[in-house]
Amino acid sequence: MYRAIAERAGVYRAIAERRDMRHFKSDPIDTATLERLLNAAHCAPSVGLMQPWRFIRVTDRALREQIHRLVEEERHRTAEALGERHDEFMRLKVQGVLECGELLIAALCEGREQHIFGRRTLPEMDLASVSCAIQNLWLAARAEGIGMGWVSLFDPLALAQLLHMPDGSLPIAVLCLGHVEAFYPGPMLELTGWAKVRPLSELMFVDRWDNGAAQNRTTTSAP
Amino acid sequence: MYRAIAERAGVYRAIAERRDMRHFKSDPIDTATLERLLNAAHCAPSVGLMQPWRFIRVTDRALREQIHRLVEEERHRTAEALGERHDEFMRLKVQGVLECGELLIAALCEGREQHIFGRRTLPEMDLASVSCAIQNLWLAARAEGIGMGWVSLFDPLALAQLLHMPDGSLPIAVLCLGHVEAFYPGPMLELTGWAKVRPLSELMFVDRWDNGAAQNRTTTSAP
Repeated sequence: MYRAIAERAGVYRAIAERRDMRHFKSDPIDTATLERLLNAAHCAPSVGLMQPWRFIRVTDRALREQIHRLVEEERHRTAEALGERHDEFMRLKVQGVLECGELLIAALCEGREQHIFGRRTLPEMDLASVSCAIQNLWLAARAEGIGMGWVSLFDPLALAQLLHMPDGSLPIAVLCLGHVEAFYPGPMLELTGWAKVRPLSELMFVDRWDNGAAQNRTTTSAP
Repeated sequence: MYRAIAERAGVYRAIAERRDMRHFKSDPIDTATLERLLNAAHCAPSVGLMQPWRFIRVTDRALREQIHRLVEEERHRTAEALGERHDEFMRLKVQGVLECGELLIAALCEGREQHIFGRRTLPEMDLASVSCAIQNLWLAARAEGIGMGWVSLFDPLALAQLLHMPDGSLPIAVLCLGHVEAFYPGPMLELTGWAKVRPLSELMFVDRWDNGAAQNRTTTSAP
């Protein structure tokens, strides 16, 4: 019984204390741990059981530097696109590609159009499945005391080319993994003042969308 | 120390034993538990901290029946689109909308185009964020002994209309939640013979995509 309570608490704790990390120590992740993390990802649900995720481990230093360059290029383009927030954005640390202990690329496989189950009206469910796999990996990493950051600042076609990916596949995440000095006490973008976290109560509705105040609607019945 | 080990084990256990459920008992989920689950979802990472998720709780029985009808319509259309697997598909139980204890709709909010951070080249990262929120909810539910099924068999525009959703928002999941007799011992679609689960080793590469055998590549260095 005590074990069951601790196990449940562990799930909530990993969920609450998981962070999108950008600061890493450079020690490697040991092989057994990395395998546990990848297996956790592979336990994810997938639409029609299509398992559309693919993972590429980056072990070559020159390749890592090329990926870093792609992220840097997109960082500058994003800053330009942000206009008046250009300087503020450029001061943020948005990736840890060069220093993290382990670098993974998560991608959607090719040939997804043949999978119709659960995707006829919502083809993007394949991306949802890979995202669930990444979240599994993230939570398992947190439970192991390992940090992860999901970087989406890159040109996907340029990255696909760099990794010799086939037509129809698509990289969706540069995942920086590694040991950390400490986990941030809250979301980095909140701590730096980039964005404000909204309470759940504002994002919940009952029976119909309602752009008015939705406070406390989780516990009340339909209006 | 013992607590830390049990907590970590709890995370791996929830990840390994989570199932996409279609069979439910109809007892309701108590309010405190439901709030914990929704708060777990709300702890998810989001691109640029945009928190694009919205949740609609369905409490009205007539509305639930209308949603069930939408799912049934799409189930038949999917069966037609599947051609030779039509009959096999129609024998599967693909949803538990009418019998589950709690029905939630997860959606992408409107106005997402103003969020550029992490989305300039990959605008679909908003869907990735909502998917991570749903996976959090799923794992928290599993840790509570509650089942969940993600149904994506519906016409999103028809469902948006039913829920009075604003232009630019998009429902991405009908989430059936509830108590269950038992969790399936493996993925339902594998147990029924619909699909075969592929081993992780086939979905892993090192440094470059390689459509040849990728076995054991997680532990070896670059080719």
